[in-house]
Amino acid sequence: MTESSSLDQEVAALAREAKAAARLMATAGTAVKDAVLRRVAHALVGSARAVVLEANARDMRAGEEAGLSPAMLDRLRLDGARLDAISAGLREIMALPDPVGRERERRTLPNGIELSRMGVPLGLVAMIYESRPNVTIDAGALTLKSGNAVILRGGKEAFESNRTLAAVFSTALESEGLPAAAVTLLPTTDRRATLALIQQAGVVDLVIPRGGEGLIRFVSDNARVPVLQHFKGVCHVYVDASADLEMATRVVLNSKAQRPGVCNALETLLVDARVADAFLPRVARELSAAGVALRGDEAVRARVPEAEPATEADWDTEYLDLVLSIAVVADLDGALSHISRHGSGHTECIVTEDAARAERFLREADASLVLVNASTRFNDGSQLGLGAEIGISTTKLHAYGPMGLEQLCSSKWVGRGAGQIRG
Amino acid sequence: MTESSSLDQEVAALAREAKAAARLMATAGTAVKDAVLRRVAHALVGSARAVVLEANARDMRAGEEAGLSPAMLDRLRLDGARLDAISAGLREIMALPDPVGRERERRTLPNGIELSRMGVPLGLVAMIYESRPNVTIDAGALTLKSGNAVILRGGKEAFESNRTLAAVFSTALESEGLPAAAVTLLPTTDRRATLALIQQAGVVDLVIPRGGEGLIRFVSDNARVPVLQHFKGVCHVYVDASADLEMATRVVLNSKAQRPGVCNALETLLVDARVADAFLPRVARELSAAGVALRGDEAVRARVPEAEPATEADWDTEYLDLVLSIAVVADLDGALSHISRHGSGHTECIVTEDAARAERFLREADASLVLVNASTRFNDGSQLGLGAEIGISTTKLHAYGPMGLEQLCSSKWVGRGAGQIRG
Repeated sequence: MTESSSLDQEVAALAREAKAAARLMATAGTAVKDAVLRRVAHALVGSARAVVLEANARDMRAGEEAGLSPAMLDRLRLDGARLDAISAGLREIMALPDPVGRERERRTLPNGIELSRMGVPLGLVAMIYESRPNVTIDAGALTLKSGNAVILRGGKEAFESNRTLAAVFSTALESEGLPAAAVTLLPTTDRRATLALIQQAGVVDLVIPRGGEGLIRFVSDNARVPVLQHFKGVCHVYVDASADLEMATRVVLNSKAQRPGVCNALETLLVDARVADAFLPRVARELSAAGVALRGDEAVRARVPEAEPATEADWDTEYLDLVLSIAVVADLDGALSHISRHGSGHTECIVTEDAARAERFLREADASLVLVNASTRFNDGSQLGLGAEIGISTTKLHAYGPMGLEQLCSSKWVGRGAGQIRG
Repeated sequence: MTESSSLDQEVAALAREAKAAARLMATAGTAVKDAVLRRVAHALVGSARAVVLEANARDMRAGEEAGLSPAMLDRLRLDGARLDAISAGLREIMALPDPVGRERERRTLPNGIELSRMGVPLGLVAMIYESRPNVTIDAGALTLKSGNAVILRGGKEAFESNRTLAAVFSTALESEGLPAAAVTLLPTTDRRATLALIQQAGVVDLVIPRGGEGLIRFVSDNARVPVLQHFKGVCHVYVDASADLEMATRVVLNSKAQRPGVCNALETLLVDARVADAFLPRVARELSAAGVALRGDEAVRARVPEAEPATEADWDTEYLDLVLSIAVVADLDGALSHISRHGSGHTECIVTEDAARAERFLREADASLVLVNASTRFNDGSQLGLGAEIGISTTKLHAYGPMGLEQLCSSKWVGRGAGQIRG
């Protein structure tokens, strides 16, 4: 037997075991699921803390030796304060309502059947992500609370950390009489194992890739199971001719600079030509003061000499950094056309005092969240009142936007009759 | 250039053109979409009737020569009465509310942002189906009304009929100033063209295969775009120990025999051992009188001598015919376990007078519709009050069950603010 086919068989066996766990998790009650989360929350601030931090220190040393950037090392790092925050996050998930079995839309059909919909878990979710080990806990907790099982495949830089974190889950599951395999970490970060995982049709019910373009492309091109992409956010703010320019400045600054390294941060500012003279020098001054490097088209550079020239590639780039590209557009049509060509279906915002243009923008801009007069940074599960999220889906099927507990479920139709038949 | 790569390029060009049409359809108003449907409804009972019936006659002659079964020829056949019914169906779709732009769940966030969700089309849908030409009209009408564009790939037996029907749509679209490509028929039924179609990642937003196992498997194994399977219905009725046996007989008869050739018809009856003596001879008599051939396990055959022995394959078979397999199970656990092994996620029913068992069955049986005391035949978009349907999804992602206008849409989040930023 070749090494590869033996790896395939190992992954297939793990997936089958996790799927069997998913069937049990689907009928687990809220109390026992919350008890598992409580045990994990306790362990991270108590019994498991030392071993987790030790494993993380090994990952950090290996990462330093491998020459990871300071930003990557920071994403990788766990410490007491971060474990406290992760533990607090688990308590927030415990406090959220259980989506499984929840009834919606009850009505009586003309024939007397009582019809409703009931939340049901999706089954076995595969989560493919990159460096941050806290995603291991978030994804484990959210899939568990929503009655699913999960197979996690994190980044190789965080492998030791992830292994101890997944073990904390498995111990907690077993202590509550639930199957340890409900939270399974893929035992290798070998890409062939990932490939085998995303081809378990009929066993894995959904794969969520969350990360860079290469990862998403690899999963989408090779999966034989449904994929919900959590892709990049090339988010725009369009400042319309009627905008309150003081408000526009505030929204742009917050969207770009409040936390530039995340997917709902602003990447491209579009300015209506009619307010370019009044708005551009002013917003450029404030952005520069906040440390944001500017890139602009010719119309921008005529008004903002310090802006570097933007290349065609800039309009499609998610900087995740203190960099902003700026273009002047003729009007709302120009803005919508730019967004249609370069938007990533994540978050789009118009700043305007004109109600008709606001409504047209809301209707026509294609993104999981469209906003009038508010920061793009609001595209986030907690901010929108969904509770914690596993990420933000840029796939229109099933869940478009933040994916919380409800989006990790499906719903089935339920009919209660008294012997009704079709005529 | 090889023949195959030229075919690939032709399909890719058609898909791009249909995608461009989808962008225009997404913002088309309700009135103009309904005007297109009205034109198609008119044409089918007027100007286009002769050419459609002529094309269908050619398909029928070719089908007869190819030795199609009478049942297949019947599915293929169009006549005046069927066109009248199809035309009436279009008027029903016109009367349904437009799901695009519809607002749901409006609420005010603590920071004052008015948050809601808005229905948005999915984009470009590819529909792969088999022989019935009325699906061409249904799929065209439902995708159009829901603001999508569609590429249709029907069965090769119906190709001439489908070509004229798609042409009726294109003419109607152009007459209303909309792009003809919003309803595109793949110009060949060559499987390589289908393959090229389902691999247009980023262009085709969703593929819906509807038909037999081979078709579904081919699409699922080869698609590079999201797939919603409309798969077989191996539907069960479980007659519990507490069932009203008169009601159970009525529900079983209706589920099996009212229209046996459809996916929501009953295929396997499960009978609780405690009522096997009282129920089986009685229901068998009525089923036999209705022309249903019975297959049973040993416990069944001990009570119903005329039943043939059921093989293991019978429990996984969708007969689509007047055939029923029957098994005796020990209790509700036995029924749920049989359904978990052999169910297809379509429709499951319990007949019982015991409320606790009813609720457990509703919660634990995994199907797009679970029923207490009602015929499986109710799993249908019109019966459930959704209006016309494009089919019944057995995929848990996005839409589980009948797929009507709402399920052909996604929703985006919409936030109306007054300058809110994140702290």
